[in-house]
Order: sequence, then C-alpha cells, then structure tokens
Amino acid sequence: MSLDDPVVITCAISGVIANREQCPAIPYTPQEYGAEARRAVEEGASMIHIHARRPDGTPSYEVDDFLAITEAIRAQAGDVIINYSTGTIGVPVQKRVEYLRAGRPEVAALNMGSMNYAKYSRSRKAFVFEMVFANPFAEIVELLRAMNELSIKPEHECFDIGHVGSLEPLIDMGVLHRPLHVDCIMGVVGGIPPGAENLASMVRNIPDGSHWGVIGISRDQWMLVGAALALGGSVRAGLEDNLYLPDGRMASSNGELIARARAMAEDVGRRPATVEEARELLGIAR
Amino acid sequence: MSLDDPVVITCAISGVIANREQCPAIPYTPQEYGAEARRAVEEGASMIHIHARRPDGTPSYEVDDFLAITEAIRAQAGDVIINYSTGTIGVPVQKRVEYLRAGRPEVAALNMGSMNYAKYSRSRKAFVFEMVFANPFAEIVELLRAMNELSIKPEHECFDIGHVGSLEPLIDMGVLHRPLHVDCIMGVVGGIPPGAENLASMVRNIPDGSHWGVIGISRDQWMLVGAALALGGSVRAGLEDNLYLPDGRMASSNGELIARARAMAEDVGRRPATVEEARELLGIAR
Amino acid sequence: MSLDDPVVITCAISGVIANREQCPAIPYTPQEYGAEARRAVEEGASMIHIHARRPDGTPSYEVDDFLAITEAIRAQAGDVIINYSTGTIGVPVQKRVEYLRAGRPEVAALNMGSMNYAKYSRSRKAFVFEMVFANPFAEIVELLRAMNELSIKPEHECFDIGHVGSLEPLIDMGVLHRPLHVDCIMGVVGGIPPGAENLASMVRNIPDGSHWGVIGISRDQWMLVGAALALGGSVRAGLEDNLYLPDGRMASSNGELIARARAMAEDVGRRPATVEEARELLGIAR
Amino acid sequence: MSLDDPVVITCAISGVIANREQCPAIPYTPQEYGAEARRAVEEGASMIHIHARRPDGTPSYEVDDFLAITEAIRAQAGDVIINYSTGTIGVPVQKRVEYLRAGRPEVAALNMGSMNYAKYSRSRKAFVFEMVFANPFAEIVELLRAMNELSIKPEHECFDIGHVGSLEPLIDMGVLHRPLHVDCIMGVVGGIPPGAENLASMVRNIPDGSHWGVIGISRDQWMLVGAALALGGSVRAGLEDNLYLPDGRMASSNGELIARARAMAEDVGRRPATVEEARELLGIAR
Repeated sequence: MSLDDPVVITCAISGVIANREQCPAIPYTPQEYGAEARRAVEEGASMIHIHARRPDGTPSYEVDDFLAITEAIRAQAGDVIINYSTGTIGVPVQKRVEYLRAGRPEVAALNMGSMNYAKYSRSRKAFVFEMVFANPFAEIVELLRAMNELSIKPEHECFDIGHVGSLEPLIDMGVLHRPLHVDCIMGVVGGIPPGAENLASMVRNIPDGSHWGVIGISRDQWMLVGAALALGGSVRAGLEDNLYLPDGRMASSNGELIARARAMAEDVGRRPATVEEARELLGIAR
Repeated sequence: MSLDDPVVITCAISGVIANREQCPAIPYTPQEYGAEARRAVEEGASMIHIHARRPDGTPSYEVDDFLAITEAIRAQAGDVIINYSTGTIGVPVQKRVEYLRAGRPEVAALNMGSMNYAKYSRSRKAFVFEMVFANPFAEIVELLRAMNELSIKPEHECFDIGHVGSLEPLIDMGVLHRPLHVDCIMGVVGGIPPGAENLASMVRNIPDGSHWGVIGISRDQWMLVGAALALGGSVRAGLEDNLYLPDGRMASSNGELIARARAMAEDVGRRPATVEEARELLGIAR
Repeated sequence: MSLDDPVVITCAISGVIANREQCPAIPYTPQEYGAEARRAVEEGASMIHIHARRPDGTPSYEVDDFLAITEAIRAQAGDVIINYSTGTIGVPVQKRVEYLRAGRPEVAALNMGSMNYAKYSRSRKAFVFEMVFANPFAEIVELLRAMNELSIKPEHECFDIGHVGSLEPLIDMGVLHRPLHVDCIMGVVGGIPPGAENLASMVRNIPDGSHWGVIGISRDQWMLVGAALALGGSVRAGLEDNLYLPDGRMASSNGELIARARAMAEDVGRRPATVEEARELLGIAR
Repeated sequence: MSLDDPVVITCAISGVIANREQCPAIPYTPQEYGAEARRAVEEGASMIHIHARRPDGTPSYEVDDFLAITEAIRAQAGDVIINYSTGTIGVPVQKRVEYLRAGRPEVAALNMGSMNYAKYSRSRKAFVFEMVFANPFAEIVELLRAMNELSIKPEHECFDIGHVGSLEPLIDMGVLHRPLHVDCIMGVVGGIPPGAENLASMVRNIPDGSHWGVIGISRDQWMLVGAALALGGSVRAGLEDNLYLPDGRMASSNGELIARARAMAEDVGRRPATVEEARELLGIAR
C-alpha cells in the first residue's frame, strides 16, 4: 500500500450489537440491507461487510438470512465486493462455514487471535464489560481451510501486533497465500491502543505485498480514518463501527458515513478505489 | 501536544517566491495583507506568519514594510499572533534583528540548521535548483539572544531530526527556554522525506512539554496536514506553502485554505485553538 | 528508563517446563535454588524470579515449597529482591494469593492479558502446541488487590502492546499505582514478534515514569537482551528463559547466563544495578 | 539486511583528527597502516576504511600516499575490501577523484548532504567547534559520476534522514544504482541524535534491498554498535571513531576494537562476514 494507491472504502453496514432504538438507520430486513448498501456504494464504498440479522433485527447465523441479504445487496447495489463476518462467540465453526459455503462471498473476515476484550468507563471507574475473546489457532486454521476450498479471500482482523505476527507461521504452513488483506482494529480495551503511531508500528509487521486498512471502534474512529489515510492505508466506516459523524450528529444512513470517509480521503490527495480496483488491490481472483 | 489539544492553525499568507502571475490572491500591499489576514482569522487561524513585500510585490527586509504590514493586519484582523520570518539568504542577521526590534512580533521563525535545499524534477531527471542552505549555530545563537532580549518567542523551523536535536545544547547553554514551539518542515529535497511515519519519528525527538506543528511544502502539504492532525500536532497552511486546495483548484484566498485545514481538524474530532488558547499552548507570555 | 540508568538484571532461575534431563543445572531442592541464586547475585543479578518446585523437580504451588525456597535464597544469596511468578494454568487465584501472603516477596509477576500462546515448528510445518492463555481482567484485578494489600510490587508481564495498554484503565480505577514496573515478553507465537523495533514500539506505550525490561523467550533471547540494553531497558536471563549461552553451549549455571548479560550491558556502556538501586528504580517501598 | 545476515565489520583504522599524542596506536606510515589492517582482519574486519597520512602523521590527499598505504595493506592484510574516504573540507573534488582513479579502491565513502557539524561541551556550556559541513548535490553528483566510471561502489554516509532521502532522486536520475550501501552516522551535533530508536527511523528510509550499517562517533559508539547489531545492521569500529574500549581503557590497536565488535555480534547470535560475503552483501562486482 502506498499513498498513491486508491483507498478501498469498506462499509460495515450493520453490526449485531446496536439496534434501531440507538440508531434508526440500522438495516434489519434484506430490503433495508440492500438500500443501505446502495447508498454506501453511491458514496464510494467498494466493499460491504455484513453481519446477518433476522427481519426483526436479532442477530442471525442462518444460511437463509445470509442468502436473502446477499441477494438484496446484489440486486440493489450492483457490483460490489461482499464480505461476511465470521467473528462470533458461541457459534460453532461448522455453522459459520455453512453460510460461507452457501453465500460464497468474495471476502470473509477472520479474527487472528485471542485477547481480553473489554470496555472501560472512566466515569464509573469500572469495566462495563470484559471477556476473553478466544480465537485459537486450531479454529483459525479450520476457517482458513474452508475459505481456501471455497476460494474466499480472508480479511485478517488483527487487534494487536501479535495477531499480525500470527500470519507468518500460517503462510509457512501453506494455509495462507500472499498477497494478504489485513485490517488493523483499534479502540478495544485489551487490544492495541488507538493512535497513528501504534498503527504505523502494526503496519510495519504486515507481510510485504499485503493490502491493509484500519477499522476504528468507538469515538476514535474518525481520527483513525485520518491516520490510515495519511499512512497510505484503506479504511472502514459504517453503522457497525460508529453511529456518529465527526460533528457529533447521528448518521442518517451508512451512505452519510461513507461520504465523509471519501471526503477525508480526497482531502489528503487520495481517491476511493472502484470495485475493480479494490479487487486488484486485495488480490481477489475473478 | 495531544489529540485533546485544540489545533493552532497558522496562516503563512505570503511567501516571497510565488507572485500574482502564479496566483492572483497573493497579497502585496499592506492593505492586501490585512484583508488576507482577516479572512484567515475568520476561518480559524490564530497565527499569521509573514514575509514582507514592497507594494510592488518584491521581497522586503525593511523595517518600514514590516511595520506597515503589521499595522494593517492588526487593524483588519484584530487580535491574532503575528509571526515574522527570519529565514533568508544573503540578508545579514543584524538587518533581520532590526525589523524584529521595530515590529515586536509575538513569535519569530528560526531555522535550526544547515542542509542541502533542492527541488528535483522527475520529468526532467534533474535538479531544478539546489543550494546549501546555511544556518550555522553562531547565527542561530545570535538570533536567539536578540529574541530573548525582545521577548519574542522563537518558532523553531526544523527540516530534519538533527535540527530538532540541535535544540538540546541550546537549552543547556541557557539561550533557549522551555516550553518550546517546534515546527517540522517536510517536502524539501535534502530535508527529511515527507510522511506520517517520519513525522512521528521527528516528533519523538522534540523536548518534552513543547508545542509542535507541521509545515508541508508543495504537493504533499494536505497529506501532511492530515498526518499532523492524527498525531496530535498543529498545522500551517497558506499561499506561501501551497497555492492549491486538495481538489486541485487554485485557492482564491488564504481564508479558503484555512477553512479546509479547519474542516480537516474537525473531521478527526479536533477544533481550532482560539488566539488566547494558542498563546497558552505556545507558552507566550503576555 | 534511560541509557544512563543502571540495568536491573533479573535471574529467572528455574521455570517449570524444562527439567534436569534437558539441563543438569536446573535447581530442584531449596538448597539448589539457594546456590543458583547466590551464583546469579555474584555475577550481577539484583532480582531472583522463581517458580517453585518440589524437591523431586515437579512444579509446586504450595506455600511450604515457596517458603523453603525463599528461605534458602535469603540464606545463601543475601540481600536480593525476590519475585514470585503468579502465571499458571489451572491454579485458582486464591491458591496463588496464599503463597504470596505467606512468602511476602517484594515483587510478583502478573500477566496482563489473554492471547494465543503457541510454538510453531518450521521443520514440521505445524504447531508444536497451541492454547488460549486466558488472563481476564477480573483475575488481574483480583491479583492486584491482593498485592496492594500485601505491599507487593507487581511486575507487569506484557506479551503485546494491548497488554501494555491495559495498564491505563487499571491506573484510572485506582488499583494500580505509579511508578510501574513493566516487562515486555517477546518470542511467543501469538504475542508480539521479537525484535528491537517492536520492542521500541511497545515501550512507547508504557506509562511515563515506569521502569521497563525485556524477557526474551527461546532462541532470540540474547538478541533481545542486546536490543533492550541499547534502548535503555533492563533485562532478564536465566534457565527459565533459555538454557544456552550465545555461543550455543548449554549453561552450567544461572550465574554463567547472568555473567553474559552483565558483560553485554558493560559493552554498551552500562552497568548492573545494585540491589538497592534496583529497589529505587522499581519504586519498591522499604 | 536481516538478523540472519552476517555482519560486515569495517575498521576505520586512522582518521585525520586524532594523533599519536592522544593514542600511540594510530598508524602513520604505510607499514603501520598495513600492520593495523592485518590486526583488524585477523579479528574479523572485512573492510578497511582509510584516510591517508604522510609518514609524519599529517593528513594527505596525495596519490602517492594513498597508493603506498593501499599496497602496504594488501601486502600485510591479504584480501580485504579497501574503502577510501572522500569527505574533506577544502580539497577540490578533482583532487579526490585523482586518488580514487589511481588507487581504485573497491569502495569509497561519500557524504550525502550538508549540515551543521558541531561539538558541544556541557561543562563549558559552549560549542567547542561548529561549522557548516557543505556537501552540495552538484559535488555529490560529480563524485558519483567518477565512481561509476571507475567501478567504485559508493558507501553513502548519512548524518540525518534527509541525507538518506537524497538517495532517491539520484537513483531516479540514473547516477546511482541499486543495491546501495548506506551508513548511518550518529553522534555529531547537528546530525540526527544517537540512539537505537532514531537508527530504526533512519533505516526505514533506506531504499529496499540496500545493505546498511552504523558509524558511531564519540562516547556513544559502543551503544550504537549494540543498537545496529540488534536491528540487523553492520557496524564500523576503529581508531578514527573512538579510541576507547567499552571499559574505558584506550585501545592498544585497531584489532582490539574489532575483536570487541565481533564479540558483541556473537553475543546477539550473529557472526562476522567473510570478505567474500561482505562483497556479496555490498553488491560489489568482481
């Protein structure tokens, strides 16, 4: 990645934690996913990252829901890279592989390590929640083997430098093939602290020839978008990561968030990648 | 400096190299300097950096021109920090001290080292110009002694990490007093190559407790503004550094450039410092 | 920490994984622990880190074994800082607190986060072992509260930058008090990859005013000792971390390993801290 | 360069500043140069860097002195890479090219930029000396053209990151050909401050595929040797850079300094390059 590369803007249109009571723009039905994806693509997104929901908004890991959402996105947003989440707690690997096999997204996210995953409140002087987020190597390898078989490109979600370092033995084992597509996730307590300097440190550990981006969680998200753009990386935005625009207003759609990310890219002299350019940068075979 | 600090936005309203044939908005007369300063302040600048010109646009190092410009800025732009350049070639230190003594700006820029100063053309495969930019320690010390006597705060212009490293012996000698105000200049061939990672390396060498910013020269300027904002620093923009907006249009005024810098600061969750906040951040005694 | 500080050399005289079949110098009985500690202190160690064993060499978490070993070390090695491990798998926190309460070491090690903990074999193209090493915040807080009550200084064992970042909320909560004593552990697959540049990145995240050192695991250990010494940090050596001298010979005693670490410190112009200096650098109240 | 590469140990056997009153081991006559070179090679040096002297010890830029010294080194030290200094003040480029043309060393050093070059005394609170060390691009290009014609490999001596950044336009111009051989010089006031972290920052700017090393000046020299070894670089030692061993004793020969550098390399698991390996690492055509 370099400053001359166009920016792959990914839109994470719907996580599974927030709901419409917090933000009315979060899509629940396939139709709504499709409409939100279209808005994101119109504003410059070349990849749509999805967690599935049932039409009532509850999280889903069922094949049917993934298929209906995927179809709706393809119908409404046209040609765009679809990226499925595989990061869950308590859902067996086999069930996750099933929806990958059925939906055949071009990309699937893959958590690259274990960690404490917490949220701390300065006002309460206490952890709001904390858990051990376990992603053992055995599970990573199992998911990678499935993705290889299905010709799905993994997006390596790394919360710390050790997660980035875990790529190398997997390349050596032959279950991972360059060029890689690595995302640095910052803003979770237990993971690497957010900041431009830590992002640069993390990026220096990414294997040569990889494409990389940043995923900022919570209030630092826009600052991390700025940091990644200045360092030559790609970015993710969307209602999964952050409901708010930089000026503090709640976003009225995913498109509004993507439009801001695009404007920030253009401010530092970069431009959004087209879908075809994104495929090339990510090394996705057609 | 930290991400929680407001951003000191400096406007370098007129250098001495470009002229109105290249950009019609460059101010020549005191009246024009004043009007440009006002526009910059209205958009968020808290400091105005000036090189003087005669009303015909030619560079001047004369007391009278500095005074007329300073008065016009104060009259039209109200309370703002005025910052005089002292970086020149072929103008004796004594002459520079004279205009400092007469104009009593709150801040004066000071080049912290010697270097090759060049511009290289990739299309011509040749240096467009190149010279040795000499700023020996003896001259630096002489200028510092004058600034100390006149209660002018130096802005340390550093083109490389060695220039930053040159601050420490001067502190030890007692001619320099913390907190310092350090600007990292990037984009000149012969100086540190522009980029967020090099900027972070440079900043790590700045003495604790200092305020710092970036000055980007040429086409990388906006990318460097983005890098400094993400790293917690302040920024400079203005027609001296770059005539163009990020979208490639020529700026119609300094104010238009400052408005863009301000918007970029706000995008990453920061805000411009007021003039009073800037004085506090820079450690300017009132 | 700075290059002018003396180096706190810690000796990890006996882990629980290797045994005498692999290295005859590993101590089993309290008497042997005492003799090894004495050799380490004679060569420049100011802190002894221990895992307890029964006299037959099997790992122990029993109060009696910790007490017997502690007494033997005090009797044979004289005044030295004793540091107990608390990092185990499957031993309840309460049991670990018991031996801290009984033995009252000046320092106790504390793992600061969860991670994949693995060993990869390039020749076999497979993981030799891999597990999720879980150290949830709840457990960390429980151990910290006990250490606070017992006036034991925690040594924060960090395998990645997120572990270092986990210190800050604990300071904010009031369970952790500066100055901190932080050790960066490198060389475990799943944690931050070993190297001088990653070590520097990690150290930049350590709260100001802390003392820090490196713990190198496996074949990179001596390189990491060199890196920490050049960066201004302290170091750990000993049969727990590495059985071999830089020239490939197996160590005949912990003292031989400490002598090498000391020589390396002296080669870069530093010297070992005395026990009293180490207490001061670590902020241990007497 | 990587930690797996052997270390090219260069011996700078005689500068032009110190003399025998300060250190009796400094060679003056060709015979003495030869004997010192032999000792260095015996201890692990694969390259000998020379400044010439007349037999009475005064600096020389005469062809005859360079030739006599070169012959004596070849006669006494056998196969070793000979490296001529070209860094002088007040000696015309043409005169320097003459001794390159006559002596045909495999390598010649080349200063890559201008800078303040000073020495500061903390006890006197004053600069002991200070000057502008001018190495304009025009002169660099002239020397490079001569070296290209003579098939001499340049060793790029960089005192700051801007000097490293100056390599790129010269590659683009076609006067410089990869792989490069870059040395980072630290310890001069006006240049980049000495330290492992600044060294890593500098190295990140070196064009891919280059070989690099460190040259430490003055009291930080051994610390910088340690830093370079831990970062995967090569090192220089010898009476030109530092008269003292790490323990403070004055060196009785260049060989004694090289033996120490070699021991330090071995301590971190590396080994000295043979002369043939050094040629390969430096990209010297035979």
